[in-house]
Amino acid sequence: MRFYETQEEPPDIKERLHRVGITNLRTVAKINWKGRVYTFIPTFEVTIDVPEDKKGIHMSRLVESITEAMSEAVEEEVMLSHTSLEELALAVIRRIEKKHRHRRAEVWIRTHLILEKTTPASGRTSLEPYDVEVGVIKEYEKLEKVLRVTVIGNTVCPHAMANNDGRTHIQRAVATLEVRTDFGEDITLEDMIEVVESSFSSPTYTLLKTMDENAVVQKMYENPKFVEDVAREILAKAKERFRGKIHVKVTSHESIHKHDVIAETWALV
Amino acid sequence: MRFYETQEEPPDIKERLHRVGITNLRTVAKINWKGRVYTFIPTFEVTIDVPEDKKGIHMSRLVESITEAMSEAVEEEVMLSHTSLEELALAVIRRIEKKHRHRRAEVWIRTHLILEKTTPASGRTSLEPYDVEVGVIKEYEKLEKVLRVTVIGNTVCPHAMANNDGRTHIQRAVATLEVRTDFGEDITLEDMIEVVESSFSSPTYTLLKTMDENAVVQKMYENPKFVEDVAREILAKAKERFRGKIHVKVTSHESIHKHDVIAETWALV
Amino acid sequence: MRFYETQEEPPDIKERLHRVGITNLRTVAKINWKGRVYTFIPTFEVTIDVPEDKKGIHMSRLVESITEAMSEAVEEEVMLSHTSLEELALAVIRRIEKKHRHRRAEVWIRTHLILEKTTPASGRTSLEPYDVEVGVIKEYEKLEKVLRVTVIGNTVCPHAMANNDGRTHIQRAVATLEVRTDFGEDITLEDMIEVVESSFSSPTYTLLKTMDENAVVQKMYENPKFVEDVAREILAKAKERFRGKIHVKVTSHESIHKHDVIAETWALV
Amino acid sequence: MRFYETQEEPPDIKERLHRVGITNLRTVAKINWKGRVYTFIPTFEVTIDVPEDKKGIHMSRLVESITEAMSEAVEEEVMLSHTSLEELALAVIRRIEKKHRHRRAEVWIRTHLILEKTTPASGRTSLEPYDVEVGVIKEYEKLEKVLRVTVIGNTVCPHAMANNDGRTHIQRAVATLEVRTDFGEDITLEDMIEVVESSFSSPTYTLLKTMDENAVVQKMYENPKFVEDVAREILAKAKERFRGKIHVKVTSHESIHKHDVIAETWALV
Repeated sequence: MRFYETQEEPPDIKERLHRVGITNLRTVAKINWKGRVYTFIPTFEVTIDVPEDKKGIHMSRLVESITEAMSEAVEEEVMLSHTSLEELALAVIRRIEKKHRHRRAEVWIRTHLILEKTTPASGRTSLEPYDVEVGVIKEYEKLEKVLRVTVIGNTVCPHAMANNDGRTHIQRAVATLEVRTDFGEDITLEDMIEVVESSFSSPTYTLLKTMDENAVVQKMYENPKFVEDVAREILAKAKERFRGKIHVKVTSHESIHKHDVIAETWALV
Repeated sequence: MRFYETQEEPPDIKERLHRVGITNLRTVAKINWKGRVYTFIPTFEVTIDVPEDKKGIHMSRLVESITEAMSEAVEEEVMLSHTSLEELALAVIRRIEKKHRHRRAEVWIRTHLILEKTTPASGRTSLEPYDVEVGVIKEYEKLEKVLRVTVIGNTVCPHAMANNDGRTHIQRAVATLEVRTDFGEDITLEDMIEVVESSFSSPTYTLLKTMDENAVVQKMYENPKFVEDVAREILAKAKERFRGKIHVKVTSHESIHKHDVIAETWALV
Repeated sequence: MRFYETQEEPPDIKERLHRVGITNLRTVAKINWKGRVYTFIPTFEVTIDVPEDKKGIHMSRLVESITEAMSEAVEEEVMLSHTSLEELALAVIRRIEKKHRHRRAEVWIRTHLILEKTTPASGRTSLEPYDVEVGVIKEYEKLEKVLRVTVIGNTVCPHAMANNDGRTHIQRAVATLEVRTDFGEDITLEDMIEVVESSFSSPTYTLLKTMDENAVVQKMYENPKFVEDVAREILAKAKERFRGKIHVKVTSHESIHKHDVIAETWALV
Repeated sequence: MRFYETQEEPPDIKERLHRVGITNLRTVAKINWKGRVYTFIPTFEVTIDVPEDKKGIHMSRLVESITEAMSEAVEEEVMLSHTSLEELALAVIRRIEKKHRHRRAEVWIRTHLILEKTTPASGRTSLEPYDVEVGVIKEYEKLEKVLRVTVIGNTVCPHAMANNDGRTHIQRAVATLEVRTDFGEDITLEDMIEVVESSFSSPTYTLLKTMDENAVVQKMYENPKFVEDVAREILAKAKERFRGKIHVKVTSHESIHKHDVIAETWALV
């Protein structure tokens, strides 16, 4: 049976498209993290470019590239090489290379990371969730990656504290740190999370016994910070530890307002 | 020209459907509030029931019922009668009655309400936004309404305060109050908002000069409340002022945790 | 060290709260599915009731109940008993019973399920994702469960098809089937997904080669359905296979409109 | 009474912040559109930069800049000058200039626009809703604006149509067109919406009688388009009509898949 390959025809309008593909695709993925294979269910976006003279792309080949990179058949490959989300993304790109002509390819993987933390007073283990996203962008032979972590913390207003004898308003804040850099740069999501989490008035914890809660409260009052302070501290620490284009955005869900306040900045290191 | 009316045919499977219609429809609406016509852009959901022997409904008649109830032609009617969201919803139902056979009809309108408040110290005017939703449900001749308001406030933990010499954790909290009652019951969204907003540790304001911010901070510390306290206070006040099925849900976006805490309850008055 | 237990004090306002607890808590969970332990990262909501004479609950005990039920220490228990999301939810409730007095307890787990399907023509394996939610509700000694699956399919308008010589509008539709029943009822999420997925004009697939795409297109045209038809078919099949309170909601993201259409119904079997 | 102005102090960490301010602020706004004053309830984001030697900004001054620009006192100004969302944004910036030192200021306004369209066969009026966002960015004396419209349309697969004798899969698609350009460029949101809406397989309508629905169905089949075709057509038309940085993103909510497909591209004209 022969099918029409409409995608290969020349389109009426000649314009290069930079990113064409699939998005919001949820599937099972596997990763070898410190010697142990983990399964998780991330969301994928995979795109390639389309030149002026081609009408479209073969979307199913992008889907196959994802599923093949994760299939049982490559359990061995997982053990050897998928040791990080960016290795996984690169494995998808390597399969696209065999299936679909392109000049630029991108693979984005969005998922959650759970890390073990120790609570500040009782010393218990608390499992902390983080939103993370990794993108690998190939243009000709150049490989870049984008690493993004989102962490929930808090801000304690120094202005209200100075004007109210130590009383102040406190609220949840959410910060995103993004680093765009060469694929080969050695940056872990865990280190990025640490940079962000340590820059709030206090880290937050899923499990807090009363003595831990007290320690967090005391830490917050000793460490009042504007949303601006949190953004500056994340940027300064990130500039010391990572190389690339660094972007920081902190949003504070003000407890005294119905709206949010933000501080955002960026730098190239 | 004659069209097939597939909707009128008997379906293969005989099951009554209770709610069939259109949702997430955004359009312009008008209301006469205290003698002045206001326009706004709410989101509509309009449904009717479908008996066992009918395949479907004529969706476009529901859309027409909305747009006719809001059209220029009825500017006069707006001046006379659309004095509240529930009057507007009823006006839509009255038009459906002329267009489409049904036993049960529902109209839901979701929008924002902006109310003028006075800040606690400087006495400035602050415009405060609230999410509101109104549903009118007609079954045979019985008319009920559901009124729902969502208000942003805060909680100040009394437990941490008792254990930390007056220091504590504070956070934004969001509360929803719903009353389901006879259509004729005289309940305003403004009164419901007042019930909720006065039950937090402090109300929140869009505009706060430093002296106002100080007043809010002082009020919060004098008024520590668990999310449970907020829910109880909303319920108790609502039971005094409104008649019907009352439902309260309060969510506190904890500043010391990555998750939220909730308190939810309900009562029939 | 002794702490104030503010939660145990009598509150000023005496109102029973039906649901107090934690929500949007994301953590690692494990399940023994057909003899193999799977890890995943669901979202939890855990609540208990609070009597009139108690100010609040000890939130950290709910968190501990989750993490203990999932901890390494209970790997053996996982192998034996956590064979479904509701068994996992029950395991959390059993731990709450040892930690916190209550009359009513609820545990809700929201996650994604990935199932293997075979594509209709080429016979390839396609991994399909589904949103699922399971709640277990204990009131005194009575145990109920709520099972909810959300499936992405499509509708093909029979009315437009009849009026346009076989041409019609087609669109993505999303359906949710919920069954509320005794804890002991033997209902699998996989069976519920099958009921929903088989009731659209066609099932959808993550991977479709051209010959599969053709098969799906042909199936859609041979099987035109209003959103009403999909809802009726899900309800009818669910009534045959499951016992309990059945609730069906189908939303069609119309390709010819900017709004959606819905069909919703419910029955007690 | 004198307050501490913590914001004016030098921070410990010296880093320039590019965007500090308020976001998700919902309030009433007024605009003079073709000689008539309209009220609506947009969402605002307003930011300024913070130099290395300042700890923070006075957030309340940004809020005042919004509310003053919209207050009753400036009804006359509204009649004269707020004839577009960007004029409104500029009016806010002009007030910030009197209140808070800065080098860079941004005002973003997100709202809905309702336009009157005529249905294709019956010639009825249908009110169509669009998401729009306008940003005005001032850096030193340079003024730029960003205009963004999001439109709901559809795609009709040419590949499936070629392989199935005219049968194909159809689905809702959503496209965003953004133009970043000099403040003085004369571009209307209505024109941008027209560019996008005319590039789908067919425009969509809120109200469609059967004869209109037939016309839309016929138009879709005569006009099959990949998501790539829609993106190319929007870009080509936008390049002809607008000057600036043009960005196009089209997402197709595939009726045969559970994931979406996208086509995205950009150009400088």
